[in-house]
Amino acid sequence: MAQVLKGVLAPVITPFDADLRPNAEAWIAHCRWLLSQDCGLAVFGTTSEGNSISTPEKCALLEAAAESGLETARMMPGVGACSIPETVELTKAAIEIGASGVLMLPPFYYKAATEDGLFAFFSEVIERVGDERLKIYLYHIPQVSGVPISLALAERLLKAYPITIAGAKDSSGDWPNTKAMIDMGDNFDVFAGSEIFLLETMRAGGVGCIGATTNITPAAIYDVYANWRAEDADDRQARITAFRKALDVFPMIPMLKAAIGLFNNDSDWFRVRPPLVALSEADQNLLRATLRRYEIWTPE
Amino acid sequence: MAQVLKGVLAPVITPFDADLRPNAEAWIAHCRWLLSQDCGLAVFGTTSEGNSISTPEKCALLEAAAESGLETARMMPGVGACSIPETVELTKAAIEIGASGVLMLPPFYYKAATEDGLFAFFSEVIERVGDERLKIYLYHIPQVSGVPISLALAERLLKAYPITIAGAKDSSGDWPNTKAMIDMGDNFDVFAGSEIFLLETMRAGGVGCIGATTNITPAAIYDVYANWRAEDADDRQARITAFRKALDVFPMIPMLKAAIGLFNNDSDWFRVRPPLVALSEADQNLLRATLRRYEIWTPE
Repeated sequence: MAQVLKGVLAPVITPFDADLRPNAEAWIAHCRWLLSQDCGLAVFGTTSEGNSISTPEKCALLEAAAESGLETARMMPGVGACSIPETVELTKAAIEIGASGVLMLPPFYYKAATEDGLFAFFSEVIERVGDERLKIYLYHIPQVSGVPISLALAERLLKAYPITIAGAKDSSGDWPNTKAMIDMGDNFDVFAGSEIFLLETMRAGGVGCIGATTNITPAAIYDVYANWRAEDADDRQARITAFRKALDVFPMIPMLKAAIGLFNNDSDWFRVRPPLVALSEADQNLLRATLRRYEIWTPE
Repeated sequence: MAQVLKGVLAPVITPFDADLRPNAEAWIAHCRWLLSQDCGLAVFGTTSEGNSISTPEKCALLEAAAESGLETARMMPGVGACSIPETVELTKAAIEIGASGVLMLPPFYYKAATEDGLFAFFSEVIERVGDERLKIYLYHIPQVSGVPISLALAERLLKAYPITIAGAKDSSGDWPNTKAMIDMGDNFDVFAGSEIFLLETMRAGGVGCIGATTNITPAAIYDVYANWRAEDADDRQARITAFRKALDVFPMIPMLKAAIGLFNNDSDWFRVRPPLVALSEADQNLLRATLRRYEIWTPE
């Protein structure tokens, strides 16, 4: 397993310029800050508006990251598309720039897909990429994708491709499922899909979390990871859980972008691509007040 | 409204070669046959495995169609992707080759999208395409997309873009919704998303249907359209409804491809892209027997 991908990863938000194009420079700067806080980079996930960004745009961002000298080994780009060719193209691009793993959605348009069909999809992708460096983390987020990664499917894939299938991100919020995935063994690294489950995940034998608020409070979340065996670990977890719950009143992605925009005083960060809608002014005011209330929010 | 797009359109199935690449030649031949049966061409829809085909592959197929001299004016390509750039690119390609309209899914990864957000998505696409030839048919298939096109959204879009918003395909199977869409007026052309609702749609003031079995029995479905005011229209409709229902025991897309494959004795037609699974041999045998039972199945 790729050790560099254990711990806390941020589902990196993506800034857009006035013409709604990805702003590579601001994005790389945000990535650098997250790395400086000991967090890895799960770019192009759900929180990244990954599916609002075209395959060529994602490839261009990955190349820009590599050219900038960013530590791409700590990247786990989201690469799952509905079509095999697009999934393969993006996966190859991720490997090419040195990402240590990829986060792969199932082909999410196909709600009635069978286990055999999904197995065939992942198999085709693996065979077509044909690269021993490929490490896939299965992305289970059924409430959004509409297509679950069942335990049976994960087990079947792990058995067929023990080197390539590296683990999973479980964003279902269904703890028994996360626990069952963790119990698949040491060769299957499980990340909780929310910072709320970080401590529980570590205690059960998981490897970390990929949670939305890591974008704005990476140090506090890393602190839970670094100290999960400490006596006061529950208090540390309670702190990030309370913060996350206080923010759950907002639409998550526009809120995270507004928080970074407010901090950096950079209007590019407020923008989202439709169908998302930028945070309203009223919500921005509430957000300012909420952030001030929590000591956890200490951007440098 | 584009008169050439009224009536019966086939959601054209897509043949793949042994390497799972689209077989343009076989696809164009199938399109030609459907046109010869008085049916238009809704390529790259759900039944076409449209979301399993990459944007570059779809653009290449459209160009091949135009080069072959196919009557592209009778095409309504599916162009909806989750990202604005990909939707715009494919829409421009469709206009370029002379398609009279496009069928547009909402950005289907975003299950929590608001009406404002979806309106902004379609607006951005329309503005970025920036072509007065653009005619959009909204694709309402909530059980698959997970993102409905509400009546309120359709009305708002029609009001804002009365020339560009041409109509809708309602695949919800919810007749009161189809009826309400038809009642939006003469400037909004509604296609039923299933041949089962063809007669009802015509009687209510809709313009036709885009139904799966049109791929194999276009003449019988066109017959209902051409004779919807005839005294025996109900009998004609009953015939295609019974056929469709007899086929509903099979997985629809693999079954349609197997039927064309059996008829043309062309194994390319049996193939599907994962996560779909080709029709099993047992099902192929049952399909042969089912097709023989229905006089309606009279391929030339």
